[in-house]
Amino acid sequence: MTLASSPTPSRSPLMPLDEAMQRLLAAVQPLTGYASGIEDVATLEADGRVLAQALVSALHVPPQDNSSMDGYAVRLADLSHLAAGELRRLPVAQRIAAGQHGQPLQAGTVARIFTGAPVPAGADAIVMQELVHTDTDAQGQLWASFSHTPTLGEWIRCAGEDVSRGAEVLSPGQRLGAAELGLAASLGRDRLQVARRPRVALFSTGDELVMPGTVPPEAMPPGAIYNSNRFFLKALLNRCGCEVSDWGIVPDQREATLAALAEAARDHDLILTSGGVSVGEEDHIKPAVQQLGGLGLWQIAMKPGKPFAHGWVRRAPELAGVDAQGRILPSQAAHFIGLPGNPVSSFMTFLLLVRPFLWRLQGVTEVGLPQPYRLPAHFDLPKADKRREFLRVRRNAAGGLDLFPNQSSGVLTSAVWGEGVIDHPAGATIRAGDVVSYLPFAEFWS
Amino acid sequence: MTLASSPTPSRSPLMPLDEAMQRLLAAVQPLTGYASGIEDVATLEADGRVLAQALVSALHVPPQDNSSMDGYAVRLADLSHLAAGELRRLPVAQRIAAGQHGQPLQAGTVARIFTGAPVPAGADAIVMQELVHTDTDAQGQLWASFSHTPTLGEWIRCAGEDVSRGAEVLSPGQRLGAAELGLAASLGRDRLQVARRPRVALFSTGDELVMPGTVPPEAMPPGAIYNSNRFFLKALLNRCGCEVSDWGIVPDQREATLAALAEAARDHDLILTSGGVSVGEEDHIKPAVQQLGGLGLWQIAMKPGKPFAHGWVRRAPELAGVDAQGRILPSQAAHFIGLPGNPVSSFMTFLLLVRPFLWRLQGVTEVGLPQPYRLPAHFDLPKADKRREFLRVRRNAAGGLDLFPNQSSGVLTSAVWGEGVIDHPAGATIRAGDVVSYLPFAEFWS
Repeated sequence: MTLASSPTPSRSPLMPLDEAMQRLLAAVQPLTGYASGIEDVATLEADGRVLAQALVSALHVPPQDNSSMDGYAVRLADLSHLAAGELRRLPVAQRIAAGQHGQPLQAGTVARIFTGAPVPAGADAIVMQELVHTDTDAQGQLWASFSHTPTLGEWIRCAGEDVSRGAEVLSPGQRLGAAELGLAASLGRDRLQVARRPRVALFSTGDELVMPGTVPPEAMPPGAIYNSNRFFLKALLNRCGCEVSDWGIVPDQREATLAALAEAARDHDLILTSGGVSVGEEDHIKPAVQQLGGLGLWQIAMKPGKPFAHGWVRRAPELAGVDAQGRILPSQAAHFIGLPGNPVSSFMTFLLLVRPFLWRLQGVTEVGLPQPYRLPAHFDLPKADKRREFLRVRRNAAGGLDLFPNQSSGVLTSAVWGEGVIDHPAGATIRAGDVVSYLPFAEFWS
Repeated sequence: MTLASSPTPSRSPLMPLDEAMQRLLAAVQPLTGYASGIEDVATLEADGRVLAQALVSALHVPPQDNSSMDGYAVRLADLSHLAAGELRRLPVAQRIAAGQHGQPLQAGTVARIFTGAPVPAGADAIVMQELVHTDTDAQGQLWASFSHTPTLGEWIRCAGEDVSRGAEVLSPGQRLGAAELGLAASLGRDRLQVARRPRVALFSTGDELVMPGTVPPEAMPPGAIYNSNRFFLKALLNRCGCEVSDWGIVPDQREATLAALAEAARDHDLILTSGGVSVGEEDHIKPAVQQLGGLGLWQIAMKPGKPFAHGWVRRAPELAGVDAQGRILPSQAAHFIGLPGNPVSSFMTFLLLVRPFLWRLQGVTEVGLPQPYRLPAHFDLPKADKRREFLRVRRNAAGGLDLFPNQSSGVLTSAVWGEGVIDHPAGATIRAGDVVSYLPFAEFWS
């Protein structure tokens, strides 16, 4: 059967994605804004976290002039005016390994030196060992012969050249990865102040949902489908630095739903659901959130996506939850976000909206969409859509983008096959060769 | 002080990076090649792992024709030949929510239907609710009025349209991320067969190294530097799916080094060190590895990088460790890899060589460098180098690449500022505007 995908009109105006992003971020007060939102962790364990305090270097890197080669520390004056073919032979008066500290270099002598070892006073260049011929005389004295006149400072890394004392090398709000941890450690920092992990209560909703493992595929009742959203949402939440409590499927009764939400709000920063936010009336979650706090139901002009809910649930019944301006008070309410139930819609709205929300919650300032790459499409998209589309694609060997033929939002095959999405404007078509905006999934994970 | 960076000749020929990669990968026998290298894990916990067994769908997705909209299931024949402006009014004979199962749709009636609900027999299209006007008559009967004739199959997702029963949806060797876990769960799989995590013993070497936290910056003795490599190497190893045992700094005596290596080899797949692999003679690790197994010292034509060691350490003294063809036997020997000691050299050789090694160890087939993006350089690089260079850069707002001014390999500031590297051929220069090959760090993490 061929599916018609002609755009159909909608009665309520759709909200642009950028406006949804702004509204969502405007409601966030970062954890790093108050003491209990910050924790002190071992640098070795801080991968994926967000720095809460500027990291200022307490030392020079390198701490003193040192050799960047295995070779010989020399005084330039001793190697000046070398004639072509001349070998200048000088005694090796000392030997300086990394971690050792040499004596001042006397005129007319050289020092054997190894990578990372401090350059002795008086030396002004290193000659790499591959260019030096050595011999030992009858008295056991080692001599080095040079045919090369180095330039001033050759193979010397100067004190403070890479990082100078007092420099701010990492800023608050910086996300920490492998390189940042290495840099912090090289400055002597074995502990770092970071935003604590956001605590997220994850719910799913939908009577038709069956947990994988509870019913084998051949015994699935008609109409039942496996709950897959919690599996990728948990992974995505972890990748955004969160602690996830899995609250399972929202109970099918109003009182139980109210009780579960109230309990989850007590010690979580965010209650995240998927399903139950579309205009269909078949769920308990929307009225429950409305009763316990407040809820905005958005219809976002994006595809896949569209239904999206943002609101708040009081941490306790006696709290207001929001201030006079309607801002959500982190001490009084948990955020509520409701994602669409279709897997790909849920996946994409997480990447485009929940991910920035979670990083902002941890104090990151720049949290928008990744910077797109401009690449040629190697396919036609003759039908325009009223909504901004995120088409699952991947790069081919020629450097162009191929479209996954099935852009259904019902299953994640397109997100498995695809390596990213085209951010495709509403109302536009694509002809092969057109340059489009490509957002690799890799940029969302990193 | 200005540093001269003129290329200097080397006596031994350098090994091309591609050859180093081929040699390294040729020595790997994947964990997935034998039963004890495979484990069964919960799908919820499998993010970042590698699938060891094909995942074949035991069901259709969707399991039966279902609605992809909230609306009304109709028979096309009942809505044919609608005149302009005509409203056709039909009784709503049933109501089908997701998870429920409707009755066959009688001619002349429609069914209220919600997203995800199975399409009743006889219905051949869904009309979205926004296009339908409803009213209730005096008898309490609900009626729906239509001005729109849908196309065959409109808003119906067909059984098996996304995944058909028997299809291989994930292959052995596939890396598992959020989307893959969601897809596996949607097929009912709550557990997956994956490669077990490689076990890596991490050593550092260098007399000058001080662990951060043990000596404050102001009390650092001359020549001492903080050990930063283990911090980023541990994070990188974790991101490549490994279990890391931190063995600290290699002892400064030959016997202790031998004992530590022999013990580490017993229950690790890889012994990884940084430092002690250059041609300088100041370390115990090389002779110790040679004594307990074998070692190749490579000088790789890459910058930063160059010194790199690959070898093996017997798991027990009575074992051969390698077969007659010189291949490392995983049951008899641990791999040994020695990285350069300079932080950026260590970081880049990890990304370019150790990362592919570790994924291949877990059974991934395609493990080479990420596919580069072709972008314009927005800087000049007037000096060519004899080695293939990996220049730390990032994209600017105009979509070009900016170079980090300090390409020193001594400190990770360039890798923190940079968002990727240019893969720059040996012997070439760059003029602003030249199109170069850009490898984003994000593609190495993902």
